Amino acid sequence: MVSIADFGAPLIGNLFLLPESPTMAKARKNFSKKTGMPPGSLVHVGQEPLAAGRIALMTYSADRFEERTVSSIDEIISSRGQGVITWVHCEGLDIVAMIEAIGHHFGVHHLVLEDLLNTHQRPKFEAYDEYLFIVLKTLTCDATLKVHHEQISILMFDTLLFTFREKQDDLFNDLRQRLANPKGRSRTLGTDYLTYAIMDTVVDQYFTLTDTLEEAIETIEVKLLDRPMADIFAKIQLLKRELVFIRKAITPLREVLLAMQRSETGLIQEKTLPYLGDVFDHTLRVIDTMDSYRDLINGMLDIYLSSVSNRMNEIMKVLTVFATIFIPLTFLVGIYGMNFDFMPELHWKWSYPILWGFFFLIPAVLLGWFRKKKWL
Amino acid sequence: MVSIADFGAPLIGNLFLLPESPTMAKARKNFSKKTGMPPGSLVHVGQEPLAAGRIALMTYSADRFEERTVSSIDEIISSRGQGVITWVHCEGLDIVAMIEAIGHHFGVHHLVLEDLLNTHQRPKFEAYDEYLFIVLKTLTCDATLKVHHEQISILMFDTLLFTFREKQDDLFNDLRQRLANPKGRSRTLGTDYLTYAIMDTVVDQYFTLTDTLEEAIETIEVKLLDRPMADIFAKIQLLKRELVFIRKAITPLREVLLAMQRSETGLIQEKTLPYLGDVFDHTLRVIDTMDSYRDLINGMLDIYLSSVSNRMNEIMKVLTVFATIFIPLTFLVGIYGMNFDFMPELHWKWSYPILWGFFFLIPAVLLGWFRKKKWL
Amino acid sequence: MVSIADFGAPLIGNLFLLPESPTMAKARKNFSKKTGMPPGSLVHVGQEPLAAGRIALMTYSADRFEERTVSSIDEIISSRGQGVITWVHCEGLDIVAMIEAIGHHFGVHHLVLEDLLNTHQRPKFEAYDEYLFIVLKTLTCDATLKVHHEQISILMFDTLLFTFREKQDDLFNDLRQRLANPKGRSRTLGTDYLTYAIMDTVVDQYFTLTDTLEEAIETIEVKLLDRPMADIFAKIQLLKRELVFIRKAITPLREVLLAMQRSETGLIQEKTLPYLGDVFDHTLRVIDTMDSYRDLINGMLDIYLSSVSNRMNEIMKVLTVFATIFIPLTFLVGIYGMNFDFMPELHWKWSYPILWGFFFLIPAVLLGWFRKKKWL
Amino acid sequence: MVSIADFGAPLIGNLFLLPESPTMAKARKNFSKKTGMPPGSLVHVGQEPLAAGRIALMTYSADRFEERTVSSIDEIISSRGQGVITWVHCEGLDIVAMIEAIGHHFGVHHLVLEDLLNTHQRPKFEAYDEYLFIVLKTLTCDATLKVHHEQISILMFDTLLFTFREKQDDLFNDLRQRLANPKGRSRTLGTDYLTYAIMDTVVDQYFTLTDTLEEAIETIEVKLLDRPMADIFAKIQLLKRELVFIRKAITPLREVLLAMQRSETGLIQEKTLPYLGDVFDHTLRVIDTMDSYRDLINGMLDIYLSSVSNRMNEIMKVLTVFATIFIPLTFLVGIYGMNFDFMPELHWKWSYPILWGFFFLIPAVLLGWFRKKKWL
Amino acid sequence: MVSIADFGAPLIGNLFLLPESPTMAKARKNFSKKTGMPPGSLVHVGQEPLAAGRIALMTYSADRFEERTVSSIDEIISSRGQGVITWVHCEGLDIVAMIEAIGHHFGVHHLVLEDLLNTHQRPKFEAYDEYLFIVLKTLTCDATLKVHHEQISILMFDTLLFTFREKQDDLFNDLRQRLANPKGRSRTLGTDYLTYAIMDTVVDQYFTLTDTLEEAIETIEVKLLDRPMADIFAKIQLLKRELVFIRKAITPLREVLLAMQRSETGLIQEKTLPYLGDVFDHTLRVIDTMDSYRDLINGMLDIYLSSVSNRMNEIMKVLTVFATIFIPLTFLVGIYGMNFDFMPELHWKWSYPILWGFFFLIPAVLLGWFRKKKWL
Repeated sequence: MVSIADFGAPLIGNLFLLPESPTMAKARKNFSKKTGMPPGSLVHVGQEPLAAGRIALMTYSADRFEERTVSSIDEIISSRGQGVITWVHCEGLDIVAMIEAIGHHFGVHHLVLEDLLNTHQRPKFEAYDEYLFIVLKTLTCDATLKVHHEQISILMFDTLLFTFREKQDDLFNDLRQRLANPKGRSRTLGTDYLTYAIMDTVVDQYFTLTDTLEEAIETIEVKLLDRPMADIFAKIQLLKRELVFIRKAITPLREVLLAMQRSETGLIQEKTLPYLGDVFDHTLRVIDTMDSYRDLINGMLDIYLSSVSNRMNEIMKVLTVFATIFIPLTFLVGIYGMNFDFMPELHWKWSYPILWGFFFLIPAVLLGWFRKKKWL
Repeated sequence: MVSIADFGAPLIGNLFLLPESPTMAKARKNFSKKTGMPPGSLVHVGQEPLAAGRIALMTYSADRFEERTVSSIDEIISSRGQGVITWVHCEGLDIVAMIEAIGHHFGVHHLVLEDLLNTHQRPKFEAYDEYLFIVLKTLTCDATLKVHHEQISILMFDTLLFTFREKQDDLFNDLRQRLANPKGRSRTLGTDYLTYAIMDTVVDQYFTLTDTLEEAIETIEVKLLDRPMADIFAKIQLLKRELVFIRKAITPLREVLLAMQRSETGLIQEKTLPYLGDVFDHTLRVIDTMDSYRDLINGMLDIYLSSVSNRMNEIMKVLTVFATIFIPLTFLVGIYGMNFDFMPELHWKWSYPILWGFFFLIPAVLLGWFRKKKWL
Repeated sequence: MVSIADFGAPLIGNLFLLPESPTMAKARKNFSKKTGMPPGSLVHVGQEPLAAGRIALMTYSADRFEERTVSSIDEIISSRGQGVITWVHCEGLDIVAMIEAIGHHFGVHHLVLEDLLNTHQRPKFEAYDEYLFIVLKTLTCDATLKVHHEQISILMFDTLLFTFREKQDDLFNDLRQRLANPKGRSRTLGTDYLTYAIMDTVVDQYFTLTDTLEEAIETIEVKLLDRPMADIFAKIQLLKRELVFIRKAITPLREVLLAMQRSETGLIQEKTLPYLGDVFDHTLRVIDTMDSYRDLINGMLDIYLSSVSNRMNEIMKVLTVFATIFIPLTFLVGIYGMNFDFMPELHWKWSYPILWGFFFLIPAVLLGWFRKKKWL
Repeated sequence: MVSIADFGAPLIGNLFLLPESPTMAKARKNFSKKTGMPPGSLVHVGQEPLAAGRIALMTYSADRFEERTVSSIDEIISSRGQGVITWVHCEGLDIVAMIEAIGHHFGVHHLVLEDLLNTHQRPKFEAYDEYLFIVLKTLTCDATLKVHHEQISILMFDTLLFTFREKQDDLFNDLRQRLANPKGRSRTLGTDYLTYAIMDTVVDQYFTLTDTLEEAIETIEVKLLDRPMADIFAKIQLLKRELVFIRKAITPLREVLLAMQRSETGLIQEKTLPYLGDVFDHTLRVIDTMDSYRDLINGMLDIYLSSVSNRMNEIMKVLTVFATIFIPLTFLVGIYGMNFDFMPELHWKWSYPILWGFFFLIPAVLLGWFRKKKWL
Repeated sequence: MVSIADFGAPLIGNLFLLPESPTMAKARKNFSKKTGMPPGSLVHVGQEPLAAGRIALMTYSADRFEERTVSSIDEIISSRGQGVITWVHCEGLDIVAMIEAIGHHFGVHHLVLEDLLNTHQRPKFEAYDEYLFIVLKTLTCDATLKVHHEQISILMFDTLLFTFREKQDDLFNDLRQRLANPKGRSRTLGTDYLTYAIMDTVVDQYFTLTDTLEEAIETIEVKLLDRPMADIFAKIQLLKRELVFIRKAITPLREVLLAMQRSETGLIQEKTLPYLGDVFDHTLRVIDTMDSYRDLINGMLDIYLSSVSNRMNEIMKVLTVFATIFIPLTFLVGIYGMNFDFMPELHWKWSYPILWGFFFLIPAVLLGWFRKKKWL
């Protein structure tokens, strides 16, 4: 699992099946390690200790669905047949040898193989004569609002589709069940529809993220109205930052889907286009929603800063009122604390009570003046 | 009715005709609930408890107009005839079965059917061979300036037009009366003109919103010049926020109308194009107006912040004047409050009156200096 | 005359030749009143009490020029002839009947007729088979820098040109005199050249506005350097706001002129294109100038805010200097104002003079420290 | 010479060979004066008292180069010949009659002639059948960083090239010397290469400006780090403003050069295209450099504002420390300055020394607290 | 080596093999020195004292690889042969004569030769009939985060490739070793693949820069959370500034690679296109990363400014609390320090203890009020 906070900074791990020393683990941080390697070198590039690789082979046609775990390329090849769709789902990328075999057997460009192993790709779509190559990002969000992303690569042939991911979770369980369901329509359609179904699953997951973020924004808004504190500022900044990374992961998907719809490859049938259009619409909606969140968050920052400054102003006003009221009074009492021999007021009987009168009059006048000036 | 404030956050309600428990009502908030469903599942997606569905069937030709409530697809089918335009207006979306029947009978793509039931679409236009699909947003604004929006979907065939909305109000009453009016020209024109008339009605309603916002802005401006208070800041921020959502709802309409004008579908006749151009112009004007409002509101924010800071400055100046005048005087009276045995001034006869002279002289000098520095 | 400040907010007046009650005058503010009317209804939409309509008919060919006031459509029709250009200039829009007659006789689309009467259009260009429709905005500026705009609509046929405006002033006098001048070349050219001449007149008027704004900016700049006051802030804000509206009125003209140059209508001859290019250049220049003004004004706002904050800092410094100097002194004199029985210093002969030494020494030390810190 | 500060505000001078009264000099400021004139009127529009016109005629072919001053159009016409390039360089625009003659003899559009005399053009390129028309801006910068610009117009025919400028200086001396040099390759090439050479000279001059600005920026940066003063703010603002005008003068040149490279006119030979590409590259580089300067200047503004606010904070801290330390002490000494009959402490022997202990203890505690809070 | 800080400001050095006086070294700063030179003059333009030129000649075919140092053009020419790729790598640009010879022998446009010697180019791609010309920038970063860049020019012929750079380091060592490796595939491919390999090496180096910047950003973030100091502000500003220059150096590479992919030159074979696409992807990723860094840095600036203002607010609050508490108390003790003859309280026995009560009561009340107002 790769934290979103690291998304902007590609990291590298060299996995030539060598045992990895702590020094190497440090070295993995340097994506630049790969400088000087011949292009197309099959090396896993990612931050995560890999899960043990697992390759699931699903074959289905209109009337049957079968799923099993395979470990060699031969099993995949032998499973292919007339009218049968084969979906090979690889979890964990600890399968350099397998990927090499796939590349060799199916004639995949070695740059594509290299990209399969590098989990720092941007979402992209590449059309080759025999196959399509698609890279997606899943986005999930934990309790502390830290967003994690994972790369899903799709290699789509005529009747064969490979998916590659690092993690193992239940993201595609619903899709498998739909395929396993004998009444479902999905089994009668080709790999292009399967590609759509996978992309749809990924984009639908963005809406879960959307819900979580909305809840977080609402919580912050309530706190903001109650009492703006410095920790809210930090939370707003954090959300803003996460949104930047989320947008970076989702926005290229728009171009990917446009390119797929306009692509003139024969691998995508015309009747699949409306489905891609539907995912495209959903993606636009997620992007729109993220944009509104950014606007909301910027609005909240403005409100926070303004309320901080408002409280500052109130505090200043209190200081001003206290100081301006007591400063002249203190001067006054200072006068009659002087020790001159000749101060006639000191000996008058009513001096002291009259002075008390001033002690009330002066603040009253000043407060009246402040009120007139609308400072209170 | 869906509040604009929720527009950015799509919510979902599962309406498989099941009774809904409070837990489910909570669950409806998760749009992501739909993850894993096969695409094209007909499920209502919206925030509102639905009004009971009502389906109005209007048929008209140049010489007659008829309106009645229907409840089955057969009534719609049997109403069609040579030279007759049929407008089926569905209010409330509690009509999953009806929509399924429409889809089945008229060959509507199941993704379109799905979109009909999901009220979180962006405004869009999709051209199919046999029909056009258009999604619009109405915008209304209540007394507290809270903006509500509602989705109106149009499904336009050759001589048949469906409209779908959630609410029941009098928005289309004027349009019905025009159709009912035997002298009106509208009856002689096709479903493309009817589509235009519906879009025109929706866009005209935006001008009502425009008027309300303008009044609100003017009210705030007057208050702002009178006395800037923290609550005005909140109101300005609120307006700014509403504008963000309004723009998001209206802006895509520009692309919708451009796409309709450029579409090469045979369903829109050439003579209808100027009408669409007219709605396009109105939409541009609304967007322009919203842009000016945004500029006005940003200007008001600047004025607010500047006037807050100006008042702060004035308060600071008063504090400075009071403090700088009285601080030296207080020091002076302190001196002659000391109890030294040998302080000759204490015993001079004119010390006290002379000191009073200083009490007037020092402030005068300081005030003059401040005035010269243009601080007063 | 329509104030620019209202430009963003379209207002409506219903002028079905009915006497207008105060309630209706209020109602005119609601542009939305038109919601529900059939499209193409001929209603004047504007804010101004209309000037009495006046229709001037000018006919000219290479060897003659004639101008008279007409009141019926027949006079216009009968004035047309071989090689004769007819320019019908309508001032005041109180001529609904006339416009209806024009529409009927010359086959003008009723949406165009509707637009002729609605003075809240954006500048636009529409090419029809038989005629072109152009909307322009004139901009003038009164002594208080309030900008007023007026709509000028041009309806250009092969040898016939209509212009419509609300106000009566001498804007087109120079143009008329050029046409009246027997030596002028203008008379030998067609309605496309006349259209150019009208647009050129309008754009040239923008330069007058430019001059006025420049003078205003210079005045403000001088005042700003002299002494920044809150009222300058208001004036800068006002200018900024006016500029927003001016840009909104002028910017679409760029697209109008591009569209005219690229239009494939036969109504604009090739030899007129360089003239349109010339107006296009002028428009770009006005827009450039307005952009520089916006930059200047933003710069002035920055300078204003910075100088306000500078003065605040100076005031704060004075307060700090006074307070930090006198606060320790006041403490000192307080000490020797205490009434303890056993305070030996009180009885020393040189205590008081020595203390006076401190009264000078302490401020000197503090001022030196401030100077070293570069606070003074 | 026209100051850049006026660039945004086109000014006009009417020079119908009349003696100019002070009133007219004032009137020249109104560019709008030209409103109402027939288009194509040949009037000089500029701010400068014109230098006396001087027309230099240079003729050259591969084997000879000749330069002389001419005063009539006939001399120009008679100088043309087989294989000879003629360059007519007009300095000072006091040559309305000459320009009229050129226009008449060489069939130049009168709008071009008008533009030749108006020095408030944007850089532009216009291709006519027989000739090309190019407008450039030179930019120079005096000691006070005030930027001056001048317009250079090029009218390029097949073997004849006119240049028009207002000033007389040595800008083109190097170019002349290259032409005069018998070994130079330039003489063997056509007017399109000459056009390139002139544009190259103008763009190279921008680099001089670039150097001057860089030096100014470096000077300001050094001062900024030393001690930020209000006058630096003014200088930064001035630089920012000049940059706005410089960009406005240079940016359109990019489009001019693109248009020239893509133009399908036969007047520019294919082998000249790489040269234009080279000037294009230089222009991009100047624009890039200006963009970096803008970024640098904005960074400096941020640094200035932040350092002003930092100093303010330091001053505030000193005030706070002084006030918070002495305020409680002053209160303390005030207590024992009271004159109550029954104040036992006054009569204790060690009261006064103990109090002195507090006078040291309280500040020490407070300073320690401040230090712990990291305020010092 | 050229510091990034100078990137925006092109400097020039005239290196006609003349000994260079200090005056000339100064003069080199003026890029504008070249004004007036005939275009295509071969002069080195750069800021660095040049390393002694060194020309490495590498020839390879599928079965062999040879590298040696050459000094004359003839050695290069004689090395060419059937099926042999020749790579001439020139380090140090002190080779004006050599470049002239190359230009003469291989028919290179003299503007390209001029660009080879000028190290202030933007990254660019130019396709000529016989060869391609590509300019790149390497970016390295020293310990103080100062970014240095160097220009690498590629001149690619059918079977011959020239590279030109100023510095000598081990950047291309890995590439040479790959070519020297007899099993490597690179030797079987043409100069277009070699071009790709060089570009790939340069772009991979950007990731090293990316790593260094990321580390710097993380360090600053940690310090920022610990205690925001003015020096962090300076560091953030520095990083921001470096990023501006880095982006300027990298962004044009995107267009370069797009142009190469779309170029219709026969010199780039179709099978090389995916490789260029791969470098393009990497470039996009670097640009994305730089964009995230910019966002992060702007976020850090906001956090810095906000935390500075927060500390200011805390300091102000302490001042307010101290002042507002002690000011009334000081007034109180002042009252009973007055010397009126008739002040009954002075003679009451319990006055003094009661007053002490007030000394505790008043602060308690005030502190309670502050707490209620949430100021503490």
